[in-house]
Amino acid sequence: MGMEKIAILGSTGSIGRNTLEVIDCLEDRFHVSGLAAGRNLELFCKQVQKYKPEIVSLQKKEDVGRFNQMCPADGTRVVSGLEGVEEVAGSADNDIVVSSITGISGLKPTLAAVRSGKRVALANKESMVVAGRLIQEEARKSGAGIIPVDSEHSGVFQCLAKEKQCEVKKVILTASGGPFFRVSAQEMKHKSVAEALQHPRWKMGKKVTIDSATLMNKGLELIEARWLFGLTAGQLGVLIHPQSIVHSLVEMTDGSVLAQLSRTDMRIPIQYALTYPDREQGQLPSLDLSQVGSLDFYEVDTVKFPLLALARTALDQSDSYSIVLNAANEVTVEAFLKEEIEFHEISEIVEKAVANHKQANAESIEDIFEIDRVTRVHTRNLLEQR
Amino acid sequence: MGMEKIAILGSTGSIGRNTLEVIDCLEDRFHVSGLAAGRNLELFCKQVQKYKPEIVSLQKKEDVGRFNQMCPADGTRVVSGLEGVEEVAGSADNDIVVSSITGISGLKPTLAAVRSGKRVALANKESMVVAGRLIQEEARKSGAGIIPVDSEHSGVFQCLAKEKQCEVKKVILTASGGPFFRVSAQEMKHKSVAEALQHPRWKMGKKVTIDSATLMNKGLELIEARWLFGLTAGQLGVLIHPQSIVHSLVEMTDGSVLAQLSRTDMRIPIQYALTYPDREQGQLPSLDLSQVGSLDFYEVDTVKFPLLALARTALDQSDSYSIVLNAANEVTVEAFLKEEIEFHEISEIVEKAVANHKQANAESIEDIFEIDRVTRVHTRNLLEQR
Repeated sequence: MGMEKIAILGSTGSIGRNTLEVIDCLEDRFHVSGLAAGRNLELFCKQVQKYKPEIVSLQKKEDVGRFNQMCPADGTRVVSGLEGVEEVAGSADNDIVVSSITGISGLKPTLAAVRSGKRVALANKESMVVAGRLIQEEARKSGAGIIPVDSEHSGVFQCLAKEKQCEVKKVILTASGGPFFRVSAQEMKHKSVAEALQHPRWKMGKKVTIDSATLMNKGLELIEARWLFGLTAGQLGVLIHPQSIVHSLVEMTDGSVLAQLSRTDMRIPIQYALTYPDREQGQLPSLDLSQVGSLDFYEVDTVKFPLLALARTALDQSDSYSIVLNAANEVTVEAFLKEEIEFHEISEIVEKAVANHKQANAESIEDIFEIDRVTRVHTRNLLEQR
Repeated sequence: MGMEKIAILGSTGSIGRNTLEVIDCLEDRFHVSGLAAGRNLELFCKQVQKYKPEIVSLQKKEDVGRFNQMCPADGTRVVSGLEGVEEVAGSADNDIVVSSITGISGLKPTLAAVRSGKRVALANKESMVVAGRLIQEEARKSGAGIIPVDSEHSGVFQCLAKEKQCEVKKVILTASGGPFFRVSAQEMKHKSVAEALQHPRWKMGKKVTIDSATLMNKGLELIEARWLFGLTAGQLGVLIHPQSIVHSLVEMTDGSVLAQLSRTDMRIPIQYALTYPDREQGQLPSLDLSQVGSLDFYEVDTVKFPLLALARTALDQSDSYSIVLNAANEVTVEAFLKEEIEFHEISEIVEKAVANHKQANAESIEDIFEIDRVTRVHTRNLLEQR
């Protein structure tokens, strides 16, 4: 087998950087063939010069000139914009596409990768949340294999690998509880951006870290799991597990529960998504449970974390509900990160946006983007009117 | 598929009775074709009349007459002795043989079952401890599938099912710690038989319950795991886990750890061994980790529990070492159960018996029984001389 070629969409983000670290340790097996990134041109240039991919894409067309000047790279073609990232994603040259652009911006590139019929290491959970049905249809047509990168879904994937779908009773995703698990509901209301960004276990991007503080992240993961593994609402559960060592649990019909555990380091699920069905030597010391001491589990308080309750509701609703939920959340989290609203307003505004949802057709990518667009306008209005 | 025929060796023991409970709930799938038991003739008679097996075997020839009188059973042939149980075990009629006679008495029947090339649901860990190499050779020849029944090994089996042997870094068996985990080494010394029989988690036979109090049970399980899964001493570990919910953990080379959890009920691993590779509906409520609350893990204190250290040593020694260890332990535990010695003397006498071990040929079943016999004589001498 020759080198496996990997394209990374979102290479300067947290998942992208971790993916490159994994590849650094497996350089005999993997070659970086394509990269796409957003605004961090300096880091992106370093990546391009180090890995010498055949093609790279910049988010903005107007950055191309400057990038070519600051970053001369022979043999690398520079493209840009949505068409650019779709070209990187859909290249017939790729063996694996790591889809790690955050938010709904990742959807079209993810679809391009899925349509190319290659392996897609999926870190962009919003794609599955808003277009799970469509992505799975396209994957069936193209033969693309979708391997989740989220630690929880990677855990489920590993536990399910050889089990029969019909013998799965329940899939439980664990949640660390985020920075406010031990804070009272009242205190939580007015927590600052800086406090919300202090995640106790995982180092991640800002959007997902805020989603972890509201537990919306776990809600989106439930919806993602629904589509990834073909599960019903009744088969999906969440447990708070502050140590974040057990990532997920799969209960089988016979009463056995399979679980996947590891240190809280994204390189582990990323590497698994790249090397599956093999496993390669990891770079971290062994997990020592006697040092961890205790693994604790609690029920979720959905009164304190209403966005998780809202996402649970989405599991039983039409597909458009998830799109509205995701779009309203993206707009609202952005406003919180800009310090335009308080922490408690995130869930309040998302709840309002979703309350007005009317079921809509969400079969095509155009439908999806239209629902998304309308919801964003609506949510911005709610933000202004408050 | 017609009914699957099951023979149970040791049907009046703890595993045997649990197996029949599992079969009661899966009566459309399984038929009891053979039973073998020891001295509990009353219970055995009830079993024979309920399940109407084609053949049953009594441990003692002299019980046959009485049994036929007290237990008229048309269509059931009654045999006896070692040849009897071997006939039940080796019958070409069986699809599955549950091997659950405790101690080295289970070895020859287990071998008969393995040689018949059918599935062997193995609960008799001593067979693997004293004759692991031989049993695996016979299984390779006959094509018998050996599925472990011990909860820890069932857990490992389930975790490994999906994985490549070469990618396994470490297998960790958990131990509840037994009744004396929280008792000081000094206090433990003089614990009574009644106290040692009070296991905090599992209801089991007397021999294995005492072995759990000394942690010898975990030592035997390590040796069993070595042969079941082809592991080296360095790949095998033990963690104390008082809740006995996580039965075993398998660490892969990439840093992922797979685990199997369940309620502490032997029916779960027994059913899995019978239905593998399927799973059937279980009879127990779901495991609720938020109710369990906390899963704790501790390193093992091998100074307090020297028999576990001794068993660890066996992993690196010649096969005869394990035979000596097992035989010395069986004789000594028997003496303790008869209140002939104190609790602390169990490990002291086993240590003495093993200290005198000289490596011996243990390739054939005759070799194994000879080493076993000599060790028993030697250990009884040690018991008398003390």
